[in-house]
Amino acid sequence: MTRARTTVGGLLAEIAAIGRAADSGGYRRFAWTRADADLREWFAGSATALGLDVTEDRVGNQWAWWGDPDASAAAGRPGVVTGSHLDSVPDGGAFDGPLGVASSLAAVAALKAEGFVPGRALGVANFVDEEGARFGVACAGSRVLTGAMTADHALGLTDADGTTMADALRSAGREPGVMGRDDETLARIGTFVELHIEQGRHLGDTPWPVAVGSAIWPHGRWRFDFAGEANHAGTTRLADRRDPMLDLAALIQAARRSAEELGCVATVGKVRVLPNGVNAIPSAVSGWLDARGPDEAAVRRLVPSVEAALGHPAVTESFTADTRFDADLAAGLADLLGGVPVIGTGAGHDAGILSTAGVRSAMLFVRNPTGVSHSPAEHAGDDDCEAGVGALATVLRSLAG
Amino acid sequence: MTRARTTVGGLLAEIAAIGRAADSGGYRRFAWTRADADLREWFAGSATALGLDVTEDRVGNQWAWWGDPDASAAAGRPGVVTGSHLDSVPDGGAFDGPLGVASSLAAVAALKAEGFVPGRALGVANFVDEEGARFGVACAGSRVLTGAMTADHALGLTDADGTTMADALRSAGREPGVMGRDDETLARIGTFVELHIEQGRHLGDTPWPVAVGSAIWPHGRWRFDFAGEANHAGTTRLADRRDPMLDLAALIQAARRSAEELGCVATVGKVRVLPNGVNAIPSAVSGWLDARGPDEAAVRRLVPSVEAALGHPAVTESFTADTRFDADLAAGLADLLGGVPVIGTGAGHDAGILSTAGVRSAMLFVRNPTGVSHSPAEHAGDDDCEAGVGALATVLRSLAG
Repeated sequence: MTRARTTVGGLLAEIAAIGRAADSGGYRRFAWTRADADLREWFAGSATALGLDVTEDRVGNQWAWWGDPDASAAAGRPGVVTGSHLDSVPDGGAFDGPLGVASSLAAVAALKAEGFVPGRALGVANFVDEEGARFGVACAGSRVLTGAMTADHALGLTDADGTTMADALRSAGREPGVMGRDDETLARIGTFVELHIEQGRHLGDTPWPVAVGSAIWPHGRWRFDFAGEANHAGTTRLADRRDPMLDLAALIQAARRSAEELGCVATVGKVRVLPNGVNAIPSAVSGWLDARGPDEAAVRRLVPSVEAALGHPAVTESFTADTRFDADLAAGLADLLGGVPVIGTGAGHDAGILSTAGVRSAMLFVRNPTGVSHSPAEHAGDDDCEAGVGALATVLRSLAG
Repeated sequence: MTRARTTVGGLLAEIAAIGRAADSGGYRRFAWTRADADLREWFAGSATALGLDVTEDRVGNQWAWWGDPDASAAAGRPGVVTGSHLDSVPDGGAFDGPLGVASSLAAVAALKAEGFVPGRALGVANFVDEEGARFGVACAGSRVLTGAMTADHALGLTDADGTTMADALRSAGREPGVMGRDDETLARIGTFVELHIEQGRHLGDTPWPVAVGSAIWPHGRWRFDFAGEANHAGTTRLADRRDPMLDLAALIQAARRSAEELGCVATVGKVRVLPNGVNAIPSAVSGWLDARGPDEAAVRRLVPSVEAALGHPAVTESFTADTRFDADLAAGLADLLGGVPVIGTGAGHDAGILSTAGVRSAMLFVRNPTGVSHSPAEHAGDDDCEAGVGALATVLRSLAG
């Protein structure tokens, strides 16, 4: 039972209302929330409607298979998988993640409609918790799947309300005890291809709607916790204060200065102030630092430089080294698609985690005219999105033929 | 029906669990919330148990009367009122506000127990929304009561979730349309006396458990709204960014610098970051500035100085000019209490709003050994609290005799 025509625009329209915040127009689709459950249900239903067999791995990532992936792997032809994620950053856009999932479903629908017969199992994946918006670690689903993060570490992560991932899983009706590296699932993946909206505007200045990814910059997240002494804003002399807001100001400025000096980018995008009252000196302030850059040595020097400026240590929440996708595969796909550009990116992706774990991986980027991402203003045009589906179908036809 | 012995410690113990946050041990008792409703119910019940008649004014402030306040006023003997507030700052202490309300009830109980017969109506007040923790304007209850803030302005204030005070009132079962300056209530108040825990440690270095208030420093709250452009933390070049977090850092530092130069205190204790994601450049950041000082001219120069440093205007949320309590009353009460100190304070109070509106007002401060306030560590000793009740009873006996 397949739909008459499954377009990426039509698929995205089906989930347009899920997790959308009325005040900002952006999406708040965080791991193991109600919105996430609705999106997972939509994914399973859409894949089933295309005739795919839907399953989940030990982590909760969803896999929709065309053909038997175990038989395919046993025959020496491990599957070709495409997909992305459906969760979002706070007030994120409609495309970061969902474009890849919807394009994967649309490409499979197009291949089915044309009578394509795969020569190996072909899968569509929805990775859970890619943004790390709730528990702080990006690509949590693929990190645990590949063993890059242990289940114990993941289950102990807490959200802003102090809820652990273990408790969030229980609330979502899942058993945390089964979580862990999943070799059975990994053995099914011969090649992984992730389509994603471009974050940046490299393609905006070219005639190309699609590019192939070459590399992901090294990137990480660090947290600075500054302790203060809560007291009354009116009755406490300046000299008697321990005001951690001054430390936050120093962090924001040191991060920018170090990034400029080292040729990296650095962002303090998230802060937590306790108790966050107008007339109270804060008892504690935390600031999160996101740092990336094309040169891993420079990125690794950035945080010690900020720590030295502040005289205060950082807590490392995650670090992902320089990731180079399979160069032969990237070059081959670029040729296959008519000589499209091959570009790097500063954004992390599940494809990078899989690549580092030894899975042959590639990425396709769809043009983003303004380059804006992680914002309600994030956008890709309909024609470019359909060009992305066409390119992905071409790639799958080639890799799974 | 009065209790055998109504102590301030016993009264505070009755409300110790209401609005207490398990994680911080501090109180989150915000206007027109469930905790606030529970506290209001406790106040009404406790006052009724003492034989007082409980009523509310147009704003929602609660008044518990011993004797008929209208008959008393008509006879040229307008009432003597004591009281304070029950709401808190975020993660506030147990004493700021509730000590005054509980001491008032305990003093009335003591006067009743000794057979005192008031020569004029004697009232106990619980002012609503003194801290302004939810809607941003401190002393909202007394400001609207006296006309210092219009009902229209108050009803349009919004909390962090975008809920207006009007909607919050409706949710609490109140009709916003009745809110406004309440001359009928004001006519009942001949003299107002507010007992409060000291915020600061002036008395900590003296043998006195109690002081009389002389003045409240001029103080105000301002908000700086910085607009940015939400974008991806990894893929946006530093040169292409409009990152409002840098403006926040400049605000925090300029506020401290200007306060030092002008001999004031200034605090950025509350910030709002949107969307507050680790990997997103913020779309908007707001920082709140609380500034006070003994010299009104200096306080008035502080905000323009910060605005000039930032090249960015502030929104004034509230400003309260230098407040001098009735000097003769203060001196008389200090004598009555055996020559206790007469001290000023940097903290705002409903007594200051009433004083500015022309109501003869006074304050009593109870010793706070560490001076810490607006914090779970805020504390006054049992003996000092009971001394406060004794002093308040002495004052009421004198003023209402």
